Amino acid sequence: MSKYWSPIVSRLKPYVPGEQPRMANLVKLNTNESPYGPSQSALEAIRMAAGADLRLYPDPLALGLRQSIAERHGVMAEEVFVGNGSDEVLAHAFAALLKHDQPLLYPDISYSFYPTYAGLFGIDAVEVPLNDAFRIDIADYRRPSGAIILPNPNAPTGIGLPLAEIERLVAEHPEQPVVIDEAYIDFGGESAIPLVPKYANLLVVQTFSKSRALAGLRVGFAIGQRPLIEALERVKDSFNSYPLGRAAQAGATAAIKDEAWFEETRARIIATRAELTRELEKRGFEVLPSLANFVFARHPGHPGQTLAAKLRERAVIVRHFAKPRIEDFLRITIGTNEECGRLIAALDEIL
Amino acid sequence: MSKYWSPIVSRLKPYVPGEQPRMANLVKLNTNESPYGPSQSALEAIRMAAGADLRLYPDPLALGLRQSIAERHGVMAEEVFVGNGSDEVLAHAFAALLKHDQPLLYPDISYSFYPTYAGLFGIDAVEVPLNDAFRIDIADYRRPSGAIILPNPNAPTGIGLPLAEIERLVAEHPEQPVVIDEAYIDFGGESAIPLVPKYANLLVVQTFSKSRALAGLRVGFAIGQRPLIEALERVKDSFNSYPLGRAAQAGATAAIKDEAWFEETRARIIATRAELTRELEKRGFEVLPSLANFVFARHPGHPGQTLAAKLRERAVIVRHFAKPRIEDFLRITIGTNEECGRLIAALDEIL
Repeated sequence: MSKYWSPIVSRLKPYVPGEQPRMANLVKLNTNESPYGPSQSALEAIRMAAGADLRLYPDPLALGLRQSIAERHGVMAEEVFVGNGSDEVLAHAFAALLKHDQPLLYPDISYSFYPTYAGLFGIDAVEVPLNDAFRIDIADYRRPSGAIILPNPNAPTGIGLPLAEIERLVAEHPEQPVVIDEAYIDFGGESAIPLVPKYANLLVVQTFSKSRALAGLRVGFAIGQRPLIEALERVKDSFNSYPLGRAAQAGATAAIKDEAWFEETRARIIATRAELTRELEKRGFEVLPSLANFVFARHPGHPGQTLAAKLRERAVIVRHFAKPRIEDFLRITIGTNEECGRLIAALDEIL
Repeated sequence: MSKYWSPIVSRLKPYVPGEQPRMANLVKLNTNESPYGPSQSALEAIRMAAGADLRLYPDPLALGLRQSIAERHGVMAEEVFVGNGSDEVLAHAFAALLKHDQPLLYPDISYSFYPTYAGLFGIDAVEVPLNDAFRIDIADYRRPSGAIILPNPNAPTGIGLPLAEIERLVAEHPEQPVVIDEAYIDFGGESAIPLVPKYANLLVVQTFSKSRALAGLRVGFAIGQRPLIEALERVKDSFNSYPLGRAAQAGATAAIKDEAWFEETRARIIATRAELTRELEKRGFEVLPSLANFVFARHPGHPGQTLAAKLRERAVIVRHFAKPRIEDFLRITIGTNEECGRLIAALDEIL
């Protein structure tokens, strides 16, 4: 603490990202990155952007990128908001749309950045418990609320809600903004973007960090009707006019157009997920049914923290959350087949 | 307005950045970009970053970049904070350090993003008028305050304060955080960074957008003692863990090491500024004494808005602020000698 701090600073509970270790020959399955390099056309576009024009500010409206995202998803460019990773998009959504007199609702087991955002913006929040099967039950959201946010598929469980359930949630709360955080939607879930024309209260957030393999570029976006997008724009333009540099805009624009790369890599990740799930179950793990690029699994005979530590000794990094109800679980990113093989081999030594 | 907006949204007054027109053969002297392309080693580093590793998150601590900035400026890496352009660094500083019971002070004619930040974070602010010579008089800041921010050199005037004046201001307000926004310091001003070890209340903010010619990359930084930097880190880690992507970190790290490029280009800009000032004065302009990469000038016979419009007809874009006291001025970025020549030729047609 310091007398120079604004009063809010000492009350903040900053988010702790998964570590980015720099060990060689590591099997890094802790932060849900893609095991495959990004689209070659995206990389080429970034290289092309590394020229004399970098002396100039980027387009503050990112119109080219927004147009490309709009075309890919069948909406208008005006219905697309882009930001510095979906984390920044979510931060702006919390500030612009999720602070009301009634509390914000989100699942108790979910993206751990949500309580941090709520603290930063002074938002009264209520955590709605997952049911005993670690599922979101939308009936539990029938309570007084100012807004709702939930990930679909949820993290760190990986469990997805069918689109009909999402639609019911959105339809049941016509007075509340409902944000669906689809960071992991491309690995088998069904996006809520087609519902946007029908529901004025729906905002869908996605990212280039997972299914586009561009975590290192920092690009995310949101899709919703104009009034919701305008709220995000007003906050963004009161915070930072140019969150996306020229290389980021160029790379993301090329990436969203590379449908062949996208389909091939996500199919490989989905196939590896099925194989990894089978191998874990063979060894006695309970694996929650995942629609994401990770699995959430626990072993009846081995506490999660111990397993994570023993895997680390074998140069395999997974993520463990020291949190009630889920402390026995490991969240394991779907790597290449070879990386998942090394994980299984390490588990065979440990178990 | 929309019922879905958080209450703050309708009260915001978003910043309006200088336009980024896409006309060919334009003389673009409106947003204080460098007329020279960035360091070749910076561009090469960005191209090298455009590889398979972009699938991985960047270092959330940006340690390599912070170490390089620290070495350049004779401080410790822990005393350096980096962000997505100095606009994001300033936004975090407003939230983390500039909100107190007593009002924040800044000049009435200054960077027009300051009132926007104050509005976003609900900060009570008092605008302290420049004196009749458009100069900051630090005696005017001897009044009750919670914090102070000012640019040195000031924008859009270009006028700089001597380091002794800055030190007096910082020393006279030991209870208040004092932020010196040095976006334009490298064009002839004297940085306050050497004062950091002596003053716990001093934060100095700089950018790669101007003197490093990387406006398109989005990198800025702040230097201060640990408690101030920690406040910025706490807010940043409650907002967005990874504001700087891999290409941005790599490019900025290479740029700060390229001292030869830096010295050569800033010397050229300073020389062109002197020449442009002489040419404007020859034509009857009053030119404020600039230490920045722009000049602020008015002509007794021609209103600023009219001049700006007539220059635009001749494909020369400068910035005009429709604001009391300065509505007769034009803010003209220092371009290449050729660009400044085209500006002068256009003025010779107009005047």
